Amino acid sequence: MINYVYHNPGKIIFGKDCELEIGKEVAGYAKRVLIVLGGPFIKENGLYDRVASSLSEAGITYYDLDHIVPNPRLKQVCEGIEMCREHDIGFVLAIGGGSAIDTAKSIAAGVKCEGDIWEYFGTFTRFITDALPCGVLLTLPATGSESSNCAVLTNEETGLKRSLFSDYIIPRFAMLNPEMSYSLPPYQTACGTVDILAHLMEAYFTNTDNVDLTDRLLEAAMKTVIHFGPLSLEYPDNYDIRAELYQAANITNNGMLMAGRLGDWGSHNIEHEISGIYDIAHGAGLAIIFPAWIKYVWKRDPDRFVQFAQRVFDVAYAASRKEWTINRGIKKLEEFYREMNLPTRLSEAGIGDENLRTMAEKAMIGTSAVGMAFPLQEEDIYQILKLAL
Amino acid sequence: MINYVYHNPGKIIFGKDCELEIGKEVAGYAKRVLIVLGGPFIKENGLYDRVASSLSEAGITYYDLDHIVPNPRLKQVCEGIEMCREHDIGFVLAIGGGSAIDTAKSIAAGVKCEGDIWEYFGTFTRFITDALPCGVLLTLPATGSESSNCAVLTNEETGLKRSLFSDYIIPRFAMLNPEMSYSLPPYQTACGTVDILAHLMEAYFTNTDNVDLTDRLLEAAMKTVIHFGPLSLEYPDNYDIRAELYQAANITNNGMLMAGRLGDWGSHNIEHEISGIYDIAHGAGLAIIFPAWIKYVWKRDPDRFVQFAQRVFDVAYAASRKEWTINRGIKKLEEFYREMNLPTRLSEAGIGDENLRTMAEKAMIGTSAVGMAFPLQEEDIYQILKLAL
Repeated sequence: MINYVYHNPGKIIFGKDCELEIGKEVAGYAKRVLIVLGGPFIKENGLYDRVASSLSEAGITYYDLDHIVPNPRLKQVCEGIEMCREHDIGFVLAIGGGSAIDTAKSIAAGVKCEGDIWEYFGTFTRFITDALPCGVLLTLPATGSESSNCAVLTNEETGLKRSLFSDYIIPRFAMLNPEMSYSLPPYQTACGTVDILAHLMEAYFTNTDNVDLTDRLLEAAMKTVIHFGPLSLEYPDNYDIRAELYQAANITNNGMLMAGRLGDWGSHNIEHEISGIYDIAHGAGLAIIFPAWIKYVWKRDPDRFVQFAQRVFDVAYAASRKEWTINRGIKKLEEFYREMNLPTRLSEAGIGDENLRTMAEKAMIGTSAVGMAFPLQEEDIYQILKLAL
Repeated sequence: MINYVYHNPGKIIFGKDCELEIGKEVAGYAKRVLIVLGGPFIKENGLYDRVASSLSEAGITYYDLDHIVPNPRLKQVCEGIEMCREHDIGFVLAIGGGSAIDTAKSIAAGVKCEGDIWEYFGTFTRFITDALPCGVLLTLPATGSESSNCAVLTNEETGLKRSLFSDYIIPRFAMLNPEMSYSLPPYQTACGTVDILAHLMEAYFTNTDNVDLTDRLLEAAMKTVIHFGPLSLEYPDNYDIRAELYQAANITNNGMLMAGRLGDWGSHNIEHEISGIYDIAHGAGLAIIFPAWIKYVWKRDPDRFVQFAQRVFDVAYAASRKEWTINRGIKKLEEFYREMNLPTRLSEAGIGDENLRTMAEKAMIGTSAVGMAFPLQEEDIYQILKLAL
């Protein structure tokens, strides 16, 4: 286990109707608020009105930054930063999923940072030292960004998708009402669920030894997501099923299950190159990349991938043929993705081999290796993308 | 799942040598500190000197409250409150295990509360509204009190052992260096480990439906504790083993694994009556009470106890004979306690039937039932104590 500091002061408010108290929560921080809205459905289904009236009751003035797109863009963040400065905003409130949240967090940091906010993305040498407080009303359980210290943005000029890390951008509160996911299109539910599982796998595939408790906690969360993911497609308006996914997404990225271990995150970085070019949903990209990634890297530490297959998918173990156990695990993972109606190959998503080399090259920009536990070079990434065709 | 608010702002500093930074951590809160010391070994083994020199370097003046005993007493808390007032103390630092921590938390609350601090124990009608900040340097992984909102005290005049709950007493930081447990006597290691498992079981034995994620997380932690507990007795100075127990104790009581579910805590309350009268270690009392408690209550919800036996102890399941599965689970739990060299019967701890009725009566003082998921009356508690003979 690695030495660590765990400190996540974010407040989780979980349950039916929690959003009715949002004015009271925000009022503790500021009276002038920027609302970052994740999709048109928020205004169409009455949610926006409920939030607005709670804010008004608490004496809060608010401004909207609307039409945030999936794989959120630097341009909208810059627009939000301008709005905050113009209107003397003291709090940024995201309503939506990961895209709205990451936009809000980036704005919150951007208002207070020196120079261009993009310069703080994809680097471990330049750090945010302050940010506006922000909060979240979550409509899609997926990224866990509502409790994390990370934001992911795409720079539309360069096509680069990069991450910002800072404890200053952990949302002060996150409201999680599982009912809000009832009306999600099945494809979005599926992509969100696959994203939760992907975060758990990124943390699980570590090169840190002696992390048995967090191994088992991660397995517990993976089994839950794999169980409830398909059920959420079958019974979209069942509270109990949605609640499990909301809670799983949240706990996955609050840092606790990852304490004391180094995650990999290589698959995420490779996927970012796919969704950077093709505008495919992040979850769908992960369903394509992860099986290919495991096929390529498992030989570097067979025992870890055997444990994954055994404990998460209950695959039988035969000491002399570890690769059989691992292969059965990969098959079961692909089966899960197919149950979620997602592609497991680039070709199924209409993507050919035209940009494999470009994506591999771009993944290496600004880094000496992709993936922390199983470091990859450009040729490795190219081979993984080929395996994913 | 029940609606919940989860908010634990405590900072966990985990790893070797973390205590060397303690002056810096404390200095952020106050320059005058009360140190609550859990046992003479802290001064004997050089730990106190290391802490003292770090505090001095940070320009901090400190006063000692020494000789805290297991099952900590109200009297020492009152003494600590006096010292804080006399010396204008701004921060309470516990060095030790649960007894030192609970004493420190009670002092921190007592300094700021109206009236007698004991009046806030064992009630859900009177609440703490402020407390001094406190911090922890942990020497024994057990209660998880270093991250919890709870403190347990014994009033030596009445023999009553009761709990105080308040988010104001969550320690601001907890330093967890697993090396500090190397020198623990095996009996204390055993009692601490059994206490961790007991907290997980208290949370697990719920009457809240649809809590699958937290069920699985709790099972993950239980399996880890059951695996590493006996190993810690066999290899007392192995860092990796001790680290698992430190991390498990901590995560168990920070609230996250219990979010959205109602735990029982009846066994803890019954055990408090035993250790209130006999001054037996809390962990040893739990090893005696829990098997008896399960034997008595499982019929109220056989499926939950079947799941416990199956998932935690890998007992086989036969649909038509649930009680066989449950009984095998109880046997395995008792085997674990015996592996930890702890008693599983009152008689093994030298306790006869002379006070069973008194303990059952006392457990009911100030409450309409003992245990939240499986509520018990006096006669139930008496029968459980008889089963434990």
